[in-house]
Amino acid sequence: MATDTPLQLGMIGLGRMGANLVRRLMRDGHRCVVYDLDESAVRELRAEGAVAAGSLGDLVAKLERPRVVWLMLPAAVVQPTLDQLTDLLAPDDAIIDGGNSYYRDDITRAAQLAPRRIHYLDCGTSGGVWGLERGYCLMIGGEPAPVARLDPLFRSIAPGAGAAEPTPSRHADGTAPDGYLHCGPSGAGHFVKMVHNGVEYGMMAAIAEGLSIIEHADAGLRKHTADAETAPLREPEAYQYEIDVGEVAEVWRRGSVVGSWLVDLTADALARSPQLEEFTGRVSDSGEGRWTVLAAVDEGVPAAVISTALTDRFQSRGLGEFADRVLSAMRSEFGGHAEKRSQP
Amino acid sequence: MATDTPLQLGMIGLGRMGANLVRRLMRDGHRCVVYDLDESAVRELRAEGAVAAGSLGDLVAKLERPRVVWLMLPAAVVQPTLDQLTDLLAPDDAIIDGGNSYYRDDITRAAQLAPRRIHYLDCGTSGGVWGLERGYCLMIGGEPAPVARLDPLFRSIAPGAGAAEPTPSRHADGTAPDGYLHCGPSGAGHFVKMVHNGVEYGMMAAIAEGLSIIEHADAGLRKHTADAETAPLREPEAYQYEIDVGEVAEVWRRGSVVGSWLVDLTADALARSPQLEEFTGRVSDSGEGRWTVLAAVDEGVPAAVISTALTDRFQSRGLGEFADRVLSAMRSEFGGHAEKRSQP
Amino acid sequence: MATDTPLQLGMIGLGRMGANLVRRLMRDGHRCVVYDLDESAVRELRAEGAVAAGSLGDLVAKLERPRVVWLMLPAAVVQPTLDQLTDLLAPDDAIIDGGNSYYRDDITRAAQLAPRRIHYLDCGTSGGVWGLERGYCLMIGGEPAPVARLDPLFRSIAPGAGAAEPTPSRHADGTAPDGYLHCGPSGAGHFVKMVHNGVEYGMMAAIAEGLSIIEHADAGLRKHTADAETAPLREPEAYQYEIDVGEVAEVWRRGSVVGSWLVDLTADALARSPQLEEFTGRVSDSGEGRWTVLAAVDEGVPAAVISTALTDRFQSRGLGEFADRVLSAMRSEFGGHAEKRSQP
Amino acid sequence: MATDTPLQLGMIGLGRMGANLVRRLMRDGHRCVVYDLDESAVRELRAEGAVAAGSLGDLVAKLERPRVVWLMLPAAVVQPTLDQLTDLLAPDDAIIDGGNSYYRDDITRAAQLAPRRIHYLDCGTSGGVWGLERGYCLMIGGEPAPVARLDPLFRSIAPGAGAAEPTPSRHADGTAPDGYLHCGPSGAGHFVKMVHNGVEYGMMAAIAEGLSIIEHADAGLRKHTADAETAPLREPEAYQYEIDVGEVAEVWRRGSVVGSWLVDLTADALARSPQLEEFTGRVSDSGEGRWTVLAAVDEGVPAAVISTALTDRFQSRGLGEFADRVLSAMRSEFGGHAEKRSQP
Repeated sequence: MATDTPLQLGMIGLGRMGANLVRRLMRDGHRCVVYDLDESAVRELRAEGAVAAGSLGDLVAKLERPRVVWLMLPAAVVQPTLDQLTDLLAPDDAIIDGGNSYYRDDITRAAQLAPRRIHYLDCGTSGGVWGLERGYCLMIGGEPAPVARLDPLFRSIAPGAGAAEPTPSRHADGTAPDGYLHCGPSGAGHFVKMVHNGVEYGMMAAIAEGLSIIEHADAGLRKHTADAETAPLREPEAYQYEIDVGEVAEVWRRGSVVGSWLVDLTADALARSPQLEEFTGRVSDSGEGRWTVLAAVDEGVPAAVISTALTDRFQSRGLGEFADRVLSAMRSEFGGHAEKRSQP
Repeated sequence: MATDTPLQLGMIGLGRMGANLVRRLMRDGHRCVVYDLDESAVRELRAEGAVAAGSLGDLVAKLERPRVVWLMLPAAVVQPTLDQLTDLLAPDDAIIDGGNSYYRDDITRAAQLAPRRIHYLDCGTSGGVWGLERGYCLMIGGEPAPVARLDPLFRSIAPGAGAAEPTPSRHADGTAPDGYLHCGPSGAGHFVKMVHNGVEYGMMAAIAEGLSIIEHADAGLRKHTADAETAPLREPEAYQYEIDVGEVAEVWRRGSVVGSWLVDLTADALARSPQLEEFTGRVSDSGEGRWTVLAAVDEGVPAAVISTALTDRFQSRGLGEFADRVLSAMRSEFGGHAEKRSQP
Repeated sequence: MATDTPLQLGMIGLGRMGANLVRRLMRDGHRCVVYDLDESAVRELRAEGAVAAGSLGDLVAKLERPRVVWLMLPAAVVQPTLDQLTDLLAPDDAIIDGGNSYYRDDITRAAQLAPRRIHYLDCGTSGGVWGLERGYCLMIGGEPAPVARLDPLFRSIAPGAGAAEPTPSRHADGTAPDGYLHCGPSGAGHFVKMVHNGVEYGMMAAIAEGLSIIEHADAGLRKHTADAETAPLREPEAYQYEIDVGEVAEVWRRGSVVGSWLVDLTADALARSPQLEEFTGRVSDSGEGRWTVLAAVDEGVPAAVISTALTDRFQSRGLGEFADRVLSAMRSEFGGHAEKRSQP
Repeated sequence: MATDTPLQLGMIGLGRMGANLVRRLMRDGHRCVVYDLDESAVRELRAEGAVAAGSLGDLVAKLERPRVVWLMLPAAVVQPTLDQLTDLLAPDDAIIDGGNSYYRDDITRAAQLAPRRIHYLDCGTSGGVWGLERGYCLMIGGEPAPVARLDPLFRSIAPGAGAAEPTPSRHADGTAPDGYLHCGPSGAGHFVKMVHNGVEYGMMAAIAEGLSIIEHADAGLRKHTADAETAPLREPEAYQYEIDVGEVAEVWRRGSVVGSWLVDLTADALARSPQLEEFTGRVSDSGEGRWTVLAAVDEGVPAAVISTALTDRFQSRGLGEFADRVLSAMRSEFGGHAEKRSQP
């Protein structure tokens, strides 16, 4: 289903997300010039119909004015790339940062580019490895004019209204039901994407905790040592269940209040590996979760669940160890409690 | 689409959920005898094809043996109803408690009914006011034989496999993809439903916190009083966004990682009422959230997000007021800080 | 400083706390009959002036009526000991459970002993290994009459009013300024002690977290890998401090708002071992912290800090591992993120 | 007890803390020149022996070189005062910021003053309204030379070693046992004070929550409405205690593990006002608590208890209202739950 208004776009950064964005755009008839330090990634997309560029300069040269350049890069690489790119561009050209930059950097960058009349848009892009198929949810910040001009690109990337039932009470116009939204001025897109990821942390933690409580519903079947340190389970008869958490995730996918894409994915992971033994439980966090908490603190808005979800990720990676050693030391001081080495 | 194996069921409790369960069952060809203290509810369903009963005894009399009686009652009313009902039933009859009973009560009740050979099944039922249309997610506990015998009923109530895409990695048999699951022995159904609601609390809180952070992204536009008590916002220029949270909820419905039924519902609520002024923010909690936290503590499983979501609901209803007065008192004692009456 | 009204007491359980209670009592002129399964503990106290008992029966026989028997036993051993002891006692005798029993058991036990006119007191005892020197803070539950009769014992065990400055605004009578308090009927003593330990968990966690933040104030001096997964520290120049946390704990001991016995003990532990390398950070929890959270949930009182402190102890012992594996699995599903094995 | 080495100091800001610092310094023989916009504050201290200054310039003029100027001002006023003051000072003069500035500002300010060879020290000052009597705990950042030169001032302000028992395991030298500590380079003093306040938030919350759980131990005596929304208290017989929380705070002051200045102050507040009715429970937060959480997030250190304590303060002031309205809206959407207006 080709778009009525094909545009041209240069993509810098052909990791999984960048490459799939290009594929979605080309499917809709947009023309893409692509560049990556990894030449094989460039070759692969050229084979699929993209125009290959051998350098930033080459990419810029192969784009018609006014140019559109989309950056899909790790946050740490955006600024050096911008520094190079800016001198190659001309007034009315537009840059879209589709990665996970901090929204405050967007404000700075847009202000720096404004005197050159280069438009800088920030575009939070959610969808992960499934976006090629499902489309990407886009949260866009920047001036209205370039956002409007590039609408056909956003529309091709986004999932489209058919991806979910209409919202019954909704009568407003706008692009949100198509899966992309101009959220506000520079930084607003990445701000909303940042909070989106904070919400994601909280939802993920809720699901994981719940499944863990169900997984441990057999606590009454396990032997516990009785000593002054560890409270025996008072009612072991209430914890005699051996419940298949994968089946639980599956059943929650339909008709339940917690139905969600995250539950879908969890069911899939548990279907493949019922105990998830291939994971150790060291959960990474990227910047967005942290920035969300910083924003909540700055605003004075309570965000206990998101904060806790972030903190738990720190805990999972052992970052609480010093504090925990202090706790064990205190317990030793006041109670003579020796630390227990094995699992109680 | 009628079921191949129509069964007969007596429904006690014709609130919204009970009545809609009857409707879904009748649509599939099952025969329903219905009873409620509210006679108008009984009349309404009789008009739709159910058999009306004027008392518990009448309901039991109108059912063929082995009987199936489904209770859809507030938790506090279940036990008195059971006390009456038990004497009216006979061996091989089955009772299904479809409400939100505490799973420990299920264990007790099933054990009490076992000598009379009355089967007691617990069935956590999720779906809310939308279940008539979407189907209900069912989490079932009890002996395997009656669960198997009543399978056609569960199948008719549940959403069915078509309600979501198949889980790609799943190759197992079982009913979970149809939206109902025999989770284990007595209590297992309500245990899983209890945790489901705990997960629901956490997911809801994550979404609400996130939208609140976005709603307050205009903090830098608001005037703050500068005094020794309140820290001024260091970088007001970073909080100048006036973002439409309803549009954000709508855009998150498609393609994003947080896509979920709860986000769908939130988008709908915000489409109807952008500032939700009709709500005061006193958030109720029912038993399941509390019981989930108790289970986590008993099991020794960290569930910080779910616990926090529960605690926040207590806070929303002013239940932390005494503690907060203690805090203000301490601040007054050590710092001479007078409590601020108006919003900082 | 001998008491004016020496009493006689039988102590069962001569662990560190039981033995030191006996020593404090004997210092004040009370006569003690002592029993423990460990005969060397009995011999040691006999050498210090106690009357040794070789069995529960022997202990009871060596006490004058009305007898007073103090149990200082692990929670799991209290009930079996009571079962034996009850038959040996007579009307007007009193039992004091000075250990960490669950207050609900006190209610049951007192009710069971009431028909025999045996008085059952619950006495939460705080003070740890330092109690011999500092005295023990006593929180007592039970009927007023036996509590009053045994007042000289409690007075001898408690720290006494001299252990702290008088509370300036206090004009009430009562024993609280002496360090012991009759809190209410059966169970009230252990209830207050239970919550005391919950508060202890929260205070400990606050101190440990704070010292950990100070310990990591050198984060900007450490090398971090820059990748798509880990957010680089935005302002490493703000985290260039190498602060001696032991010195910080020491300076907080005088004049600061956080001055407390726990900070005193922390300073001591850090003076001995600046990095606390002898601890691994697996923090035990005993029943009281858990029961405090259960009580808060039952009461509907927000106790987020105490709950979080408990949860963090679970985390420290790896009990969140399943949930964390679920999180890593989700991240792998939606983002193709491989789990990072080494410390970011 | 006069100091051996009297120094001269200019104090700008004669609020409670500034004025009391001057008094402690004068008691020890130091000479103080004082200035405040509020002339009555200046007159009051002149009557006690200080030299009055009518302007910043006057204050500077009345000090001998090398001058020492101590700022005790609200955070928002520090920078404008510095801007004026800097031009009045000369090389080798020293400025001490004793207020609650953000440590990052210290780094900037010290760097700005360095070319003029004006020394800038940051000094976190804890002790509140009691400091005159108890002394102030001082956490100092800056270059070693001026810190050493001004040691007699810090020593006079700090509580002194006699304010607490010696730490048994401590053999190191240093000033920490005297209640003041040079923590590190510029900003280190305010960094440690910032975290101190974070710890304070957590300890306060733990105490307040615990007392609230005890205050509500009578939950079983209260009537609850039974409906589908509110879970009835399952075991009301376990919550029948009417415990005097003021007495509990008093008894915890001696011999218990939670003994602390904060418990002392709480006991005092409750002795004066057993239900603290003069407070509404709107708990302010100043910058330090927020900054502590930001630092923890930046460092990747779990600080769930301190974060939660901060969030709860936001909640106490109604800042979670929008999120709570979203929760009520969701409940209405999926469950048809109307919000309950009265206290459950």
